[in-house]
Amino acid sequence: MTFISRELRLKSQPTGMPTADNFELVSVGLPDPAPGEVQVRNLWMTVDPYMRVRMNEARSYMPPFQIGEAMQGGAIGEVVVSNAPNLKAGDLVTSFLGWREGFNAPADGVAKLDTHGLPPQAFLGVAGMPGLTAYAGLLRVAALKPGDVVFVSAAAGAVGQVVCQIAKLKGHTVIGSAGGAEKVAFLKEIGVDHVIDYKAVPNLAEALIAAAPDGIDVYFENVGGEHLEAALAAAKPFARFALCGMISQYNAIDAGAGTRGLIQVVAKSLRLEGFLVRHHADLQPVFIKELSDWVGEGKIKWRETVEYGIESAPSAFFKLFKGENLGKMLVKLT
Amino acid sequence: MTFISRELRLKSQPTGMPTADNFELVSVGLPDPAPGEVQVRNLWMTVDPYMRVRMNEARSYMPPFQIGEAMQGGAIGEVVVSNAPNLKAGDLVTSFLGWREGFNAPADGVAKLDTHGLPPQAFLGVAGMPGLTAYAGLLRVAALKPGDVVFVSAAAGAVGQVVCQIAKLKGHTVIGSAGGAEKVAFLKEIGVDHVIDYKAVPNLAEALIAAAPDGIDVYFENVGGEHLEAALAAAKPFARFALCGMISQYNAIDAGAGTRGLIQVVAKSLRLEGFLVRHHADLQPVFIKELSDWVGEGKIKWRETVEYGIESAPSAFFKLFKGENLGKMLVKLT
Repeated sequence: MTFISRELRLKSQPTGMPTADNFELVSVGLPDPAPGEVQVRNLWMTVDPYMRVRMNEARSYMPPFQIGEAMQGGAIGEVVVSNAPNLKAGDLVTSFLGWREGFNAPADGVAKLDTHGLPPQAFLGVAGMPGLTAYAGLLRVAALKPGDVVFVSAAAGAVGQVVCQIAKLKGHTVIGSAGGAEKVAFLKEIGVDHVIDYKAVPNLAEALIAAAPDGIDVYFENVGGEHLEAALAAAKPFARFALCGMISQYNAIDAGAGTRGLIQVVAKSLRLEGFLVRHHADLQPVFIKELSDWVGEGKIKWRETVEYGIESAPSAFFKLFKGENLGKMLVKLT
Repeated sequence: MTFISRELRLKSQPTGMPTADNFELVSVGLPDPAPGEVQVRNLWMTVDPYMRVRMNEARSYMPPFQIGEAMQGGAIGEVVVSNAPNLKAGDLVTSFLGWREGFNAPADGVAKLDTHGLPPQAFLGVAGMPGLTAYAGLLRVAALKPGDVVFVSAAAGAVGQVVCQIAKLKGHTVIGSAGGAEKVAFLKEIGVDHVIDYKAVPNLAEALIAAAPDGIDVYFENVGGEHLEAALAAAKPFARFALCGMISQYNAIDAGAGTRGLIQVVAKSLRLEGFLVRHHADLQPVFIKELSDWVGEGKIKWRETVEYGIESAPSAFFKLFKGENLGKMLVKLT
C-alpha cells in the first residue's frame, strides 16, 4: 500500500513577510522503504522563527531551502514500516524531516524517542531544541550567577517560557516582555516578577528601567530592535547578553532597522554573545535530566499553540512573526 | 613667586560637535604648595576621544566635567616645588590634571615617572593609557590566538597603531582602516598587510571582504557605525570583537545612527565585548615590560601629532573627531 504524503515545498523566496504564495503543497507517493530504511508517519511538526532565514537565497548559518524541494524542520513521527533491526513499527522517532506527512529514510536519519513520560510533542518544545536553547543560553552563554536580574524578551514564546522558569527556580528576579493580556497572564502564573506588555507601554526602555531600577545583569535576546535598545539602556556594568534570535529582524528587506545606543557596550563593558543551539549539543544529557526533575517537581510548566493539518503549517509559521503563539507553535499532522 | 597657570574650563555642554565656545581659558595664581603637596608645571597634556563623553551632562562611566571647573585628563609634568619627602624639584610626574599649565596637589595625587629611556610624552601614548588599551583589548578581551586575522579601525590612531603592531609582531594578518594618504603610508610602513582608506572606498564592507576573503577573526573597534557594520559582514563564525570606542558616535545628538546587521551576531555566534582600560590596570607591569622590549627591538614604532600651548588644546581636541591626527594627539605646554 503506497503511503501518499503531502509535503510543503518552497515555491519562491519571500520578500519581507512570507505569504502562502511562497509555498506549494504537493502529494507524493512513498515507495516501500529500502533495506535499512524506515517509513515514518509524522505526528507533529514544528515551525520556528529561524526557518525564515533558510527561506532566503543567501547561505546563512544553515543552507537555504531550495526552490521546488520540501522544507525541513523538526518532527516527531511513528514508524510505519521498518526494514532496520533497531526500529520497529510503532516506535516514536524524532527527525529533521518535518513539513511533510511522512517519509522514507535510513534508520540512522531518525532517532528513537524516549519520552521520559512527557507528551511526544514536548520534544519539539520544552524538552527539545527550544528547551535546550533556553538552558544553554542562560546557563552557559549568559553564565547566570547568583543575584543576577534577568530580562527575557518574547518571554511567553517557546524558548522564553523556559528561560523565565529556569531563572525563577534558581532564585532570580525575572522581567519578561510579551505582547497581549493572555501572555501577560501566563507569565504571571509562572512566577515572572515583572511582566512588560510591550504592545501596551509607551516606551519600552522606560518600562524596563522602572521594573529594574538598579539595572539588569542578563538579557536573553529573542527579539532585537527596540528590545535590544531597551536592554542596552537598562544594563548594569558588565551585564551579559545571550543573543538567541531577533525575530523582529527576520522579515526585514534590507539589513534591518539600525540598533541605536551600542556605545553602551563600551561604556558599560557589556558582553553580547550570539549562539546557536547546535554548538551546545553536549549539554543535552544533563539538560534532559534536569528538565525531567524540574517537570516532575512542578517547577516547569509550558504552553503550546497547536494548528492542525499539514496545510495549516504556513499560516502557523506566519503567526510566529505576528506574535500569535503562546508558548511553542506546533502543527499536529494526524 | 606666584605661578600663574592658565587652565581650560568647561563653559557649556556641547550639542553635537564641540566648539571653542564650550571652553573658557582662565588664568589662576597658584599659592605656595601646602605641606605634603607638590607644585607641578605640566609639560604635556593629552586630548582623547573619551573626553567628549565627559562633556555631556549625564553621568556615563566617568562623572561629567562640571561647568565652570577645569577639565581633567592625563598630563606629564615636572615638579617645581616639593613639600613632600618622596618627590623633589625636577622630578617628572604623571597626573590626571591636564588641561592646565600647572597645579598644586598632594604628593600622592601624582606618580613619579620612570621613563625607561622613552620620551616622557610616550607615557600619554604608546606607553600610557592608549598603549595599555591596545594591549589589553587585543590580548585579553579579544583573546588573540594563533592564526587570527585581525581588523583594526582608526588603525593609525593612538590605540590603533599599537594594536596593529602587536598583532603583526605576533605573526597575524592585519587589516587596518584609516582615512587619507599619510595614514595609509604610515600603516604600510609598520607592516599592516591590507590598508583600507575608508574615505576613498565606495563600500567599506566590500573593501574589507576583498581584503579578508575568508573573513576576520578579531575586530578591534575604535569607530562604530559603518565600520562595525563592515566587521559584522566580514566576520567569521565565532569571531571576537573588542569594543574600545566608537568615535563616530560621540558627537551624535540623539542615540546615534543605528547599526544594521546585528543579526550576524546570532548567525555567526559572535562575541562583542566592550571594555574600559581602567579595568585592566593589573596588566600594566607586564605591558610596560613587554613594550620596552618591543621598542628596544625596533618592533614598535609610533607617531604623534603635536599642537603647542594650552590655548590650542580645544582645537587639538576637535581634530580628533575630524581624523586630523596621525598617532597620538598631544599638546605641548612648555
